[in-house]
Amino acid sequence: MTYGMIATWRMAYEGVIHQSEHLADGSSAGDVLEGVIKEVEEFANFISVGYGGLPNEDGTVQLDAAFMDGTTFETGAVAGLENIKNPISVARKLSKERFNSFLIAEGAKKFAVKNGFEQEDLLTEKSKEKWEEKKKKIELKEMTPYDGHDTIGMVVLDKANHMAAGTSSSGLFMKKNGRVGDSPLPGSGFYVDSDIGGAAATGLGEDLMKGMLSYETVRKMEEGLSPEDAAQRTLEEFEKKLERKYGKVGAMSLVCMNNKGEWGIATNVEFTFVIATKTQKPTIYISNRSEDGQLIIEKPTKEWMKDYQGNLNNRIE
Amino acid sequence: MTYGMIATWRMAYEGVIHQSEHLADGSSAGDVLEGVIKEVEEFANFISVGYGGLPNEDGTVQLDAAFMDGTTFETGAVAGLENIKNPISVARKLSKERFNSFLIAEGAKKFAVKNGFEQEDLLTEKSKEKWEEKKKKIELKEMTPYDGHDTIGMVVLDKANHMAAGTSSSGLFMKKNGRVGDSPLPGSGFYVDSDIGGAAATGLGEDLMKGMLSYETVRKMEEGLSPEDAAQRTLEEFEKKLERKYGKVGAMSLVCMNNKGEWGIATNVEFTFVIATKTQKPTIYISNRSEDGQLIIEKPTKEWMKDYQGNLNNRIE
Repeated sequence: MTYGMIATWRMAYEGVIHQSEHLADGSSAGDVLEGVIKEVEEFANFISVGYGGLPNEDGTVQLDAAFMDGTTFETGAVAGLENIKNPISVARKLSKERFNSFLIAEGAKKFAVKNGFEQEDLLTEKSKEKWEEKKKKIELKEMTPYDGHDTIGMVVLDKANHMAAGTSSSGLFMKKNGRVGDSPLPGSGFYVDSDIGGAAATGLGEDLMKGMLSYETVRKMEEGLSPEDAAQRTLEEFEKKLERKYGKVGAMSLVCMNNKGEWGIATNVEFTFVIATKTQKPTIYISNRSEDGQLIIEKPTKEWMKDYQGNLNNRIE
Repeated sequence: MTYGMIATWRMAYEGVIHQSEHLADGSSAGDVLEGVIKEVEEFANFISVGYGGLPNEDGTVQLDAAFMDGTTFETGAVAGLENIKNPISVARKLSKERFNSFLIAEGAKKFAVKNGFEQEDLLTEKSKEKWEEKKKKIELKEMTPYDGHDTIGMVVLDKANHMAAGTSSSGLFMKKNGRVGDSPLPGSGFYVDSDIGGAAATGLGEDLMKGMLSYETVRKMEEGLSPEDAAQRTLEEFEKKLERKYGKVGAMSLVCMNNKGEWGIATNVEFTFVIATKTQKPTIYISNRSEDGQLIIEKPTKEWMKDYQGNLNNRIE
């Protein structure tokens, strides 16, 4: 049987490397997905997810995450979760609940603590510094808030032909207290059906949630489109509609994989993602849209990788 | 130009009567929708929405609502909002925000207060009594929690051919603190595109959010299906899928209207709804599924109406 996974952003790379061995050994899609996302959540230098995630405008780290099992349709989600390091694990735990499977704020924390998750301060010295620095820049009008929003979103297909999808995010940079993006919303941030395939989104949640892009991508795969065509048509159609109706289109990127392990992506900005399949070792790609609207997918240059590593170590951008 | 509206549950009736005059006079879809839902929210004896809504298991009233403009795609939502009487108006206000348009819990309240909404206690003597009584019954195992969930969801088409959709709910009866259902989730609880039509859902949110039923109904209307066929096929297809994958199917009902003012519904339980169009005065219907799977739509009997009124006055069921 074939297997594979696709994840948004370069930050998923190390987790994908570690988990791709487990996937090859027969681990379940759910375990592999949770494993990758936990690793991203726990690495403090990734400032848009989990521990070390950027706080909201009030200085509090509030996290969103979701988990969906494509075989059973069990789905769990949290939004505005505070002081819990692994929102993805809370979301997965919630997916087992028949009722009350999407919890927010205090209620989500209550559930997490009751289920043995430890409470801890998620604000690191680095993310606090970064927050203060960005706050100052906003005050000086050197930058606009709501500029960063790098959600980890992914789809996994395991050897038993089961699929899972999930997301984790600290949301829009400098978001308002209680702001929810697309990440925890089924159909918007993620969707998966093991009989077809799965998809996940990243970008401006406020725009993404107007379009159900993850659901629509899976639906187009069900109609017979390749993952590549499904993701790209979904994004292009929605961008046109949003431009016409709303007059503004934010950053939007999609990753998807069908149940044969074939994958596709779509994006309207520079966007990195990570793939690993039975026939392809873990690989980082960098994608963009050319001026004439074509999707360009390349391996990142050595310079890009070096810059990335420098930024990650210093978090000075 | 034609016009019309469709709303879930008998409780929408009085609001629809009052607003149907405004709709005929040329009021906007958004104003009419907000008007109907506000009236439902403010009537204390409706125990599943707004003021007098049933509290969660901790005894706190937490409200969910959403608003979507089908012409501009402006979308706003709140979840877990406390102490604010008209969540629909907060959601509509949020729909005007480019960023941070979906807010939860404290953040949602903060936005509401900042925008002039008054804080007040939403728990009435009646809803408190009802809550205590139901809690006792649950303890004595005379009833199961999570049994009631009557969301007001509606779609409006105005004379200028603009459409709006919205929802408001106190959620699942005896829900956990922070539980979010489908009502505030775009595509699940509601969706609308003035070029096509709109839909709204009510029922077990945990199941509805696995299927994007409102989005899918609108999509099927876009493909050319009548509202009737769109709603029914959407529900039937999803029920089959959910039964196969999840093994359990909760209560689910859908209402929809296209931009010609034609409407449709689908349900797997006894379900009341209210219609008013250019050619039809405000009418209550009661629908159900027959044993052989056919949708039955009838006007309620006089006995039914009398029982309903009795229940509403006494809230003793």
